[in-house]
Parts: sequence; C-alpha cells; structure tokens
Amino acid sequence: MCAQTRLSLSKERFWAAYDLSGSEKEATEKAQAICVEQTVEYPLDLIERDDIRQQILGRVISFTRVTATSYRAVIDFPTEAACDELTQLLNMLFGNVSLQPGIRLVNIGLPKRMLKSIQGPRFGRAGLRELVGVAERPLLCTALKPMGLSAQELAELAYQFALGGIDLIKDDHGLTNQLFCPFEERVERCADAVYRANKKRDGRTLYLANITGPADSVMSRARLARVYGAGGVLLAPGLAGFDIMRCVAADDAVGLPIVSHPAMQGSFTVYPDQGISHGVLYGVINRLAGADACIFPNYGGRFSFTKQACRELVDATRKNMGSVRPIFPVPAGGMRLDRVPELVDFYGDHAILLIGGDLYRQGPNIVENCAHFLRLVEQSAARK
Amino acid sequence: MCAQTRLSLSKERFWAAYDLSGSEKEATEKAQAICVEQTVEYPLDLIERDDIRQQILGRVISFTRVTATSYRAVIDFPTEAACDELTQLLNMLFGNVSLQPGIRLVNIGLPKRMLKSIQGPRFGRAGLRELVGVAERPLLCTALKPMGLSAQELAELAYQFALGGIDLIKDDHGLTNQLFCPFEERVERCADAVYRANKKRDGRTLYLANITGPADSVMSRARLARVYGAGGVLLAPGLAGFDIMRCVAADDAVGLPIVSHPAMQGSFTVYPDQGISHGVLYGVINRLAGADACIFPNYGGRFSFTKQACRELVDATRKNMGSVRPIFPVPAGGMRLDRVPELVDFYGDHAILLIGGDLYRQGPNIVENCAHFLRLVEQSAARK
Repeated sequence: MCAQTRLSLSKERFWAAYDLSGSEKEATEKAQAICVEQTVEYPLDLIERDDIRQQILGRVISFTRVTATSYRAVIDFPTEAACDELTQLLNMLFGNVSLQPGIRLVNIGLPKRMLKSIQGPRFGRAGLRELVGVAERPLLCTALKPMGLSAQELAELAYQFALGGIDLIKDDHGLTNQLFCPFEERVERCADAVYRANKKRDGRTLYLANITGPADSVMSRARLARVYGAGGVLLAPGLAGFDIMRCVAADDAVGLPIVSHPAMQGSFTVYPDQGISHGVLYGVINRLAGADACIFPNYGGRFSFTKQACRELVDATRKNMGSVRPIFPVPAGGMRLDRVPELVDFYGDHAILLIGGDLYRQGPNIVENCAHFLRLVEQSAARK
Repeated sequence: MCAQTRLSLSKERFWAAYDLSGSEKEATEKAQAICVEQTVEYPLDLIERDDIRQQILGRVISFTRVTATSYRAVIDFPTEAACDELTQLLNMLFGNVSLQPGIRLVNIGLPKRMLKSIQGPRFGRAGLRELVGVAERPLLCTALKPMGLSAQELAELAYQFALGGIDLIKDDHGLTNQLFCPFEERVERCADAVYRANKKRDGRTLYLANITGPADSVMSRARLARVYGAGGVLLAPGLAGFDIMRCVAADDAVGLPIVSHPAMQGSFTVYPDQGISHGVLYGVINRLAGADACIFPNYGGRFSFTKQACRELVDATRKNMGSVRPIFPVPAGGMRLDRVPELVDFYGDHAILLIGGDLYRQGPNIVENCAHFLRLVEQSAARK
C-alpha cells in the first residue's frame, strides 16, 4: 500500500436530526448505523485509520426520547465531506437512509461558512414583494389550465387574470412543450398578454413560465422565458432535480424568481415515520436550492397534509438561515375562495394563496372573480 | 375569448397501473381522481370542451380487486401530453399522485412509437458483457472506499481489485469532489491503475467514476471520465435527477456504460401501499433513463427489501420494452461472500453482484480475496 495521507479536516460540522422508530435499543443502533451509512459505508471494525474514524464518521451528539416508540438522534457530519455540493449534502443527509424504514429527517443545521457558500433564493420574500409591488398583504396566485387549451387561449386567460389583479400567474405544471401548446409560443403569448394587462391597469403582475423539462433544456427555457418577458419561472425539482433549480437561481441571464412545484416530492413526506419532514423538504431543501416560493398542498384539501405539517413548513420557510433568504409558502390544492378568511388567518400576511379551479367557478367574468379574490384577501388581512 | 382550436390528438395512449387502498367505493373515487389530477387538474364539471374531456383526460381501462382492502386501476393517458419528455412522463405517472397516501404505481406500458423515441441504455446487458468480455456468468462488482482515503490510496485499491479479477470497480457514491480526494485526481489515478492491472493480467475490468454532482458539472465530469480512461460512470438519479442520466447515456462524447445508484430513491418504495413499486422504479424508470445496470439493496440485508421485491425488480430489468435494452440488476448492501451460492441461485447468471466491505474482511491479500469471489461465482454458476 502506498504512503498514507493523514486527513486534517476543519472541526466544522453540519448536523441532521432524525426521528427513529423502535425501542431505545433499536433506535440507538439505527443512530449508530446512520453515522456509518452516510459517510464511510464500510465495516467499522475494519477501519484502521484513526483519522478517518475521528474526522469522517458521523457522530451522535444527542439522543432523546420523543414518544414511547420513537427517539430523536442529532448526528453531525464533517462539512468538507459535503464539499459545497447540494447533491452531496442531500446524499449525506438522506441518500442511503431513504432506503430504510422508520427513519425520518426532521431538522438540519448548517454552520455559517457553509451557509455563506450557498446562494439560495435570488429574491426571497422581500425581493418578490418588490417585484409585484405589494408591501404587506398575502399575494394572489393562480394557474393557467386546463391542459388542452392552445397557447392563444391560455394567453387570453392570463390577460383576464392580470386585469383582475392576480399577482402571480403560473403555467399549470403539466404544460411543458406539448405540440398543442408549445413552450415558446405559450411563453411569448402569455408574457405579452400580462404585459398588456399590466399596462392597462398599471399593474405589476408576473407571468411564471413552467421550465420543468429535459435536463438539457431547463436552463435554455429559463433564459428564453426571460427573453420573452416572463416575470418568473415555475420548476418542479422532484422531476427535474434540486440542483438544476440552484443553477437557474444563480444564473444572471435568467435573473427571475422561481416558484417550486411539489410534483413527485410527495413520497418523502407521506408517512410520518419515514422520509423527510415537511419543514425540511419544502421549507429548507427547496430554499437551499433557490426557490423563492414553494407550493405545497394546503391542509384539508385532497392531499391530506395536516395543519401541523403546514405550520411546520411555514416556520421553516422563514427560520434564520444566515444569508439564505426567507421564502414564501404557497398553500394550494383545491382551495376555495370561501376559505380565504380562514387561510389568511392561518398563514398570515407572508404567504401566497394559490387558487385555481375555484376562480373559474364563481361565474363567467374572470376579471371580476379575480377582483373578488383580491377584495377577500385585502379584507381578511385588514381584519386581523 | 379567442377562437378555440380543437384538439386532434392521435389515439395512441400509454397506461399506468395503480394499486389503490380502501373500499371499492374509495378506490373507484381515487381512480377517477387520478384521471383528472394527472392531466387537466381542473374541476371536471367546469370543462366545457368535449375534445379536452375525450382526448386529454385519463381513462380507467380496467379496475379489479387485489385484496380485501385494495384495488388495481389501469389508467391510460394521451401520448402527446407526455411530449417525449421523461420529466413530463414521470409527472403524468406519479407527479401529484406522490402527494396522496394509499396510491402505488405498480406497472406502466408505453406504446411502440413512444418506446422508439426513447434511447434508453446505450449498452444494456449484452453491451456491458462485451465490454468486460464475460459471456455468461454473473459479473463481479466492488466499491472503492472508505471515504477519507486519498485518490492515491483508492487507486492502489483499484489496482488490486482489478488484478484480482473484479469486472466493475466503482467509486463509492459518496466520493464526489472532496478536497481530500478531488474528482479529477481520483479518476485519473484510478483509471490508470485499472489500465495497468488489465495490462498485467490481460483483463478487461472497468473503473466506474462517480459523476453524481452539481447539475452543471455532471456532463463535464462524465466527459472527463471518458478522457481519463474510465470504463463507465456511476450516477445517483435520486440526487442528480433522472433526466440528466438520459443526457449522459445519449452523449457520444461520453459513450460509457452507466451504473445507477439508489441513494434518495428509497422513499418511493419503502411502504407497500404508497409510492412506486420496486420493478417500476428500479427496473423500468431507471432503464428508460439510460442506466445499463441498477444497484439496489439485496433482500435480507440492512435495507429491508423483500425477496419478492427483488424478484419483481429483476423481472422488470429484462421485460420486453421494444428497442429499450434489458439491463443488469445489481444486488448490493452488506452482501457477504458466503452468500454467493445463494445469490447466484436466486439472481441467475444475468446479474452483477456488488460486494464491498466483505471483500476486505477475508484477509489482508485483496487480490486473493477477489480471486476467491470470482471462484465462488464461477463455481456457483457452473453448479446450477
């Protein structure tokens, strides 16, 4: 064997909290296994090098009982092992662990230097508010659909939504580059429609183009969206990958806010004793990846998120993460206008309310329906 | 509203089978909801256009009872809605559905024209066998680890593994571009070491460089791997995204076989009544994305995959998918040499056996340990 190079890593470590199902003995074993699994993935008794044992291995820094059948272990890992790569950070937090039942990632903490290396959201809450020119109240969002409409028809809808005062108008996440509604034609027409409506009513509505698509097209679609005058982009990192969102957020030729869509992320949160908590997945990981706002299914809708999960998620979107900006939570999923007062009460001012189908249900005058939505939000926000 | 454009989609549709938990009534409602959720995501009663109802919506084409509390619905969708994008296909198969409990994607079927548009694995089983020059027996694979070793130390290990007759030597999936073991230095040294060993014993061992990393580095790392003489690449699509794997597979400047790693994919399969079945995720989706071989946790190890799940996965790697090549299943995860006869018996000749830690456990002579592994596989394969 060649001469050994001794490691001399910094003492800086990041930590992850895992909820572990089972007896105290089982949970203890799981915690110890995570220390190995997420780093060296190698039989501990065969590691002869003290420097690897001491510097690379995960370390259980706290272990507490949560319920009669679950325990929480906080484990720290060497910062250098994640080497400033989001993909490798995700791998260390939850890569192989994802394959094991009864382990849920419920919190993470990154040291200052690591946070400084992360660009995160380009706009965040404050930046997005500036773009739409709304200082305080919750923002309004809706979606262009149903799939099957032509680019021209969607643009006509976008015009009416913008005229009605919706702040953010996004493509439905299923609209990508279908022949019956091609990306470029759709984005050009919708951006133009929103531009015209903004001019007419002196508004600042943003049209968000869905750029979820092939890995070698996401960035070019994002730049095209900018060229055609879109005010932002929609991206589903569960489909396209989290790191490509980071690239879009960091790209000056795009320079647009990003709204994240939860498609294909659901299996991480769906069972409470496995996966990743709602706060960590939607509030922290999406934020680290550069989302300025993060769509998730509201409680009480068809997706079975609980109130508690939504609360935890909202808290995570704003928790202090150094220079990584707070982002907007975007509750969605079968929300109705008659629930707006309750939603404003629960989410407060710093949320984006995404209402799709129900905006069409109020009657044939879409402009008036949107104005009604806006009045409801303004009244509910004022009443608080 | 502007003039309507009537849709005139082809009659070609792809289908997905979902297992739905609940009573017959609940499962029926779930099936109908999927038809809407995965396409128009819009209140059905508000869709006035017959062409959208008839051509875009999902359709339940069969509904059967599976157990006392679960039903299987086969639902078809219009091919044009997936528009030859893997990301959009995934979205239609499981995007929003992932957010709902009690729904598991258990099979998919793509029409011929759609399969023709998919390049899939560049090598597949036959191509990979040609590269390593092994016609019939199971292939041998091991991993370079533990994290913390220098590039030079890993290269020394790679040399010994290759000399011992391992067919595929992969980077551990946690080795990316750490300062203590940088990508370029590691790949150059390991590829060179395997080249020298091959020359010495007239072997055809492949070194697989881990290219999992930032979205804007995966392709450049893949091409660098080729330049430095790596024989293949390792990629974890759960971390980097499935579509970037497709791009790597399709890139002629890379032109290397891809082994897929399951990191972060586990939450899709971990509970039997939610997510995606082992066969669809590892055998079909990874294959559509261009993996030539797919690593998964063997039954009976620390990851709790069942024998039945492994069997289903193996079947999916070889099932007829038109021009999309069959790929190798790669059972892994704490496998021991003393289980080789059983593994060969269970997986047959057309598998790659990945043994890591236990290869070190047999004694200090790694070349001899590998030769022992090879003899065990050859004997077990001959005995069948």
